[in-house]
Amino acid sequence: MAGTKTERLIEALRDRIAARALGPGDRMPSIRRFAEQMKVSPSTVVEAYDRLAAEGVIRARRGAGFYVAESPPALRTLGTATTPKARAVDPFWVSRQSMDARAGSLQPGCGWLPEDWMPHEALRRGLRQLAKAETTVLTNYATARGSPALRRCLLGRFAAENLQATPDQLMLTASASQAMDLICRLLLRPGDTVLVDDPGYFNFRALLRAHQVEVLGVPYTRDGPDLVAFEAALAHAPRLYLTNSALHNPTGATLAPTVAHRVLGLAAAHDLTIVEDDTFVDLDPDPTPRLAVLDGLERVLRIGGFSKTLSASMRCGYIAGRADWIEALVDLQVATSFGGPSPVTTELLSSVLAGGGYRRYIADLHRRLNGARKTAVSRLAGLGITPWVLPRGGFYLWCRFPDGIDTGDFAQGAMQKNLMLAPGNVFSPSHSASRFMRFNVTQMQDPQIYEVMREVLG
Amino acid sequence: MAGTKTERLIEALRDRIAARALGPGDRMPSIRRFAEQMKVSPSTVVEAYDRLAAEGVIRARRGAGFYVAESPPALRTLGTATTPKARAVDPFWVSRQSMDARAGSLQPGCGWLPEDWMPHEALRRGLRQLAKAETTVLTNYATARGSPALRRCLLGRFAAENLQATPDQLMLTASASQAMDLICRLLLRPGDTVLVDDPGYFNFRALLRAHQVEVLGVPYTRDGPDLVAFEAALAHAPRLYLTNSALHNPTGATLAPTVAHRVLGLAAAHDLTIVEDDTFVDLDPDPTPRLAVLDGLERVLRIGGFSKTLSASMRCGYIAGRADWIEALVDLQVATSFGGPSPVTTELLSSVLAGGGYRRYIADLHRRLNGARKTAVSRLAGLGITPWVLPRGGFYLWCRFPDGIDTGDFAQGAMQKNLMLAPGNVFSPSHSASRFMRFNVTQMQDPQIYEVMREVLG
Repeated sequence: MAGTKTERLIEALRDRIAARALGPGDRMPSIRRFAEQMKVSPSTVVEAYDRLAAEGVIRARRGAGFYVAESPPALRTLGTATTPKARAVDPFWVSRQSMDARAGSLQPGCGWLPEDWMPHEALRRGLRQLAKAETTVLTNYATARGSPALRRCLLGRFAAENLQATPDQLMLTASASQAMDLICRLLLRPGDTVLVDDPGYFNFRALLRAHQVEVLGVPYTRDGPDLVAFEAALAHAPRLYLTNSALHNPTGATLAPTVAHRVLGLAAAHDLTIVEDDTFVDLDPDPTPRLAVLDGLERVLRIGGFSKTLSASMRCGYIAGRADWIEALVDLQVATSFGGPSPVTTELLSSVLAGGGYRRYIADLHRRLNGARKTAVSRLAGLGITPWVLPRGGFYLWCRFPDGIDTGDFAQGAMQKNLMLAPGNVFSPSHSASRFMRFNVTQMQDPQIYEVMREVLG
Repeated sequence: MAGTKTERLIEALRDRIAARALGPGDRMPSIRRFAEQMKVSPSTVVEAYDRLAAEGVIRARRGAGFYVAESPPALRTLGTATTPKARAVDPFWVSRQSMDARAGSLQPGCGWLPEDWMPHEALRRGLRQLAKAETTVLTNYATARGSPALRRCLLGRFAAENLQATPDQLMLTASASQAMDLICRLLLRPGDTVLVDDPGYFNFRALLRAHQVEVLGVPYTRDGPDLVAFEAALAHAPRLYLTNSALHNPTGATLAPTVAHRVLGLAAAHDLTIVEDDTFVDLDPDPTPRLAVLDGLERVLRIGGFSKTLSASMRCGYIAGRADWIEALVDLQVATSFGGPSPVTTELLSSVLAGGGYRRYIADLHRRLNGARKTAVSRLAGLGITPWVLPRGGFYLWCRFPDGIDTGDFAQGAMQKNLMLAPGNVFSPSHSASRFMRFNVTQMQDPQIYEVMREVLG
């Protein structure tokens, strides 16, 4: 965040210290003399010294100037602390590699929009407003349930779907993932059985592994979970079913109303609780009733977040559900994280959400998504790769590869060429998706992606 | 964050809709006509309508203006969703009540600085700079270990204490509490035994309860844990010992070097892992070697955060420890929260920490703390309340009450008079601190506090 002049000065000083031109315990040049020597202003030198002192490379002695530290920290650059490893194709394959991807790597496997697709101008406006906010917003803990403004906004959005929730049925969390984690902590015990979709969101499995529970996959059809398999799985007395029902991840399929009604009926008959992750809701151009809405939040807990259409940097999610569960989840969040999202984050998110600009941005985003989806489908067709279903919205395409290709091997090969993919078995508890791959159509503008894939296909 | 004119307009519209002057399905007044009627600009009306639409109170129909929603959400205000309850004096007593305290309540029991003691001007400057940051900072997930700049800064601070840690021994977390939680998830199983200080930080107990482990308290003396009791407790084969060793919470006592060395020796002999919470480090005017430094991060994990001297709103903490544990903890954080702190937060924190202003602020803070501590000690003496030890830094005072007073009853009585206190047994696993109370000297400037306490003492 500092000017390049200061950065260059800091680098020059780091080099001298690393090369022992300035050794441990040596006095640093005086500010005035060094400023003259380097042809910069004294304030630039002060800033550089202050930052090196904050890093422990040099030390200030009261009234006696700056000295090179006796035991300076390692001076080598921390990019990602480790370079991406040759990981197994496991549930962490996509998350760790896309988070730690080096700049310039191609990422059709990642789960978010390119940064220039996000409403960054609105976020910048929000930050400038925040600089004038009441001090408490900048310095204090949030209330235990989180920002009233953002909760009011969410309750309003629920009401627009005909989901009437009361304020005590809603809490904010540090992320949608953390929302899911809190629910698992409240409702699961090691050894319990949990149903997920097969294929389904990979991080549900990583999370459930952390909870030491048995994971049972239910095949996902173009209309939702396979009802015969779902009913059969109930014989194992599962405690939870985790799903995202519209714009399902990874397939982009939509839960049909009839299937939704049947799933809820089966859940009621077997006292099964459902967690419905609605993170992709704003990417859905034509939302149909969700499980949470049909059920009225009795046995369905709705979770969601803002990372797909607002900002993944601002960590924030939510849980809506039975009031007694929410009260217990608030205590659990205090015990384990001392609260949820930052008030800075929630102020920023509510200011962007409440502005009229957000509606226009979303309408425009749907148009761009349709265009990008068409382009990706046609280019992939040229490689013999075809979508399993054509999603009505969102950025995912779940695609079938030509016969004889194992997408896990393919992804390992592509990674050597700096192309980060999301092979099917990452999403499949039964490892039955080795012919499939999830693509993100918004991350596929660069023609090089198709060239590299053609090479790897051989 | 909106101007008061818009806010007033929104309130007026909410009132009309609540009173059914505008009923479900009614068309809202046209923007131009309503602007004239209310003597505001059309853009103010547009903003008010947009925000009511975002809350679901009214709906936009394409090209046909705005209509009152058929099923608007509850219009009552969400302050704290529930008013503070008559809670038992349990580990949640302090946290839930100070988080949800109503504006204007007096909080000598809370665990943070008043907002005007915090470096809010530096935070405001940081926000203005952030508005110009690279887009990726505003929209994207962090790398799995979190901001390289903030990690470099932390490694530098560690080196200044003669603690040499390598980059792969450090990760950022969403808070110091979450740091502790991740460690418990990695190293504990239900039924394990864990040692804590008695008295000790209340939220450790709330957290350990969530992990379903046995908690064993070790009496804390003015020099650290009682070594005889500590050694005796090792017979229960505890897996972890959680502590904060300098500026101990709640007592403000300091671990003596000899005791530190003995504790580490006993831990090594019994293969005990120690988690040292160093959240209060910057409040310590004269830091002495910590357990983590003596041990060199072999069996001690250091955790910390920035909420006490920088901002509790910006959620961020860290863990330093063995590289193989850190690698596993990074995976665990991805699985349970999809990453740690917001890049917006870490940019802001590193910009403030790296500036020379932070050093001056801390020096000044130490002077203010000394003054506030002296004043509080002398005023409390007038009520017969005396400190157990005089801390060398920080804002806590652990005080003994006059004979015959149970501080739990006292705190319940004070709460009726809007005075939020932190009674001793909240901190004591053995409930042996009913004569004690933790005070925060920075929250005791208002003479009313002492008047109310005098009344409750009766």
